[in-house]
Amino acid sequence: MTLENISTNKSFGGWHKQYSHHSATLNCDMRFAVYLPPQIADGTKVPVLYWLSGLTCTDENFMQKAGAQRIAAELGIAIVAPDTSPRGEDVADDPQGSYDFGKGAGFYVNATQEPWNRHYQMYDYVVNELPTLIESNFPVTEQRAISGHSMGGHGALMIALRNPERYRSVSAFSPISHPITCPWGKKAFTGYLGSDLETWKQYDSCELMKQATGKLPAFVDQGTEDEFLTEQLKPELLEAAAKKNNYPLELRMQEGYDHSYYFIASFIEHHLRFHAGYLK
Amino acid sequence: MTLENISTNKSFGGWHKQYSHHSATLNCDMRFAVYLPPQIADGTKVPVLYWLSGLTCTDENFMQKAGAQRIAAELGIAIVAPDTSPRGEDVADDPQGSYDFGKGAGFYVNATQEPWNRHYQMYDYVVNELPTLIESNFPVTEQRAISGHSMGGHGALMIALRNPERYRSVSAFSPISHPITCPWGKKAFTGYLGSDLETWKQYDSCELMKQATGKLPAFVDQGTEDEFLTEQLKPELLEAAAKKNNYPLELRMQEGYDHSYYFIASFIEHHLRFHAGYLK
Repeated sequence: MTLENISTNKSFGGWHKQYSHHSATLNCDMRFAVYLPPQIADGTKVPVLYWLSGLTCTDENFMQKAGAQRIAAELGIAIVAPDTSPRGEDVADDPQGSYDFGKGAGFYVNATQEPWNRHYQMYDYVVNELPTLIESNFPVTEQRAISGHSMGGHGALMIALRNPERYRSVSAFSPISHPITCPWGKKAFTGYLGSDLETWKQYDSCELMKQATGKLPAFVDQGTEDEFLTEQLKPELLEAAAKKNNYPLELRMQEGYDHSYYFIASFIEHHLRFHAGYLK
Repeated sequence: MTLENISTNKSFGGWHKQYSHHSATLNCDMRFAVYLPPQIADGTKVPVLYWLSGLTCTDENFMQKAGAQRIAAELGIAIVAPDTSPRGEDVADDPQGSYDFGKGAGFYVNATQEPWNRHYQMYDYVVNELPTLIESNFPVTEQRAISGHSMGGHGALMIALRNPERYRSVSAFSPISHPITCPWGKKAFTGYLGSDLETWKQYDSCELMKQATGKLPAFVDQGTEDEFLTEQLKPELLEAAAKKNNYPLELRMQEGYDHSYYFIASFIEHHLRFHAGYLK
């Protein structure tokens, strides 16, 4: 697999880089960003935090707005931020042009329905193809953590719950906790997966958490003034599912914070230190 | 003067807010952003850092990308980020649509040439109208510092050099140090000010620094891999002018850093702590 370096910026003594590559899984060219901390300069291999972004985002939102590099540089953690859907002119998009389906809204599932199944295989891309690519091209270990925001918080939790052997820890900001019961999730899952509820459940963090056996340290931050809190996100249902199964989830409700990157930036340090505790 | 609140986001225990207002100086409606640190909640008045952004920017770039709120919250400093030019359909723009003249490129001067003189009075707006507005509407003291990036670094240095009684300290990232000798500056000054070199000199930090009498603590960070370093920025000329006049300027060349916000984010903490030392 060939990587093309698109940009490089020195950042907190390390390097922010963007790459493009052909994804066999997604059947299109993809871009991702990686932050490499200064520790790699002397040959040290570092663990990786995968960050999954929310609706409408690309690899750039987190890298430009979260302020994570400062702490990643201190802790010696690489961060990888993939795009949120397949891209390119050949890739089907929502004919209505909505922000919550199609490009920018891959929902981290493997689509089974035409025409989405030709490219929308974000679950396999994030779980398998991308880590293989990262681990064969960058000075990183196989120690992985995963985190994300909103649709990406759903992705991080769901992927960690299904693959506990591949990650050390998981966290999320404002995750879509129970997509099979909220408007964003129902629309996306109907489109990508069809109408069978049993298929949907494999991608639902609440459903997965209730029956998870391999358990990871899990941490969620949620703003109380988030406009999507009650209709779309429902973290209380995730907390209830965790309690039912004795799953080690901590949910922090953050008074007055909203759904924006101003919220993420305010608490990303805590998430990175949480993951660092399990990546060493 | 009436302020309209456009947005509010909680950030590091404080508040990021955008406002619009009618500017009498610029003869148009303007937007600015303010970060209010948590200290104001108990009635404390805080000092203000004014941040001037570079070409093509609005009030949003710094607030979203620099990661300054964390340190401002710790130090108890408000940050005000104005837009970079007058705005609106009535405001003349470069007919060529270039990024370095017209809207988004006000260069912090008072234009004397038609049609620019009708709205492009950014010097007076930043020096007088905006601080008056801020100090009569927010819980802030009259202690001010000023900083900026690129075109905004030019603005910060030039404004501090001309108004040392109004600021406690000044800093800049990658400033256009000697605009009367570089392509960006020559183009802007010719357009806004006409062809008289003496008029240009009032807005040139190197010229002003050579003869400054009121001296402020001044600090500049410059990346060595900045693509604009040798043709547009020329910090070595600013350093030479400071030495000539015994001006207390520190210039740090930062190895490997470029002109982007990844550079600014890496060193903004040092700038805020520098200003905090003089604002108390």
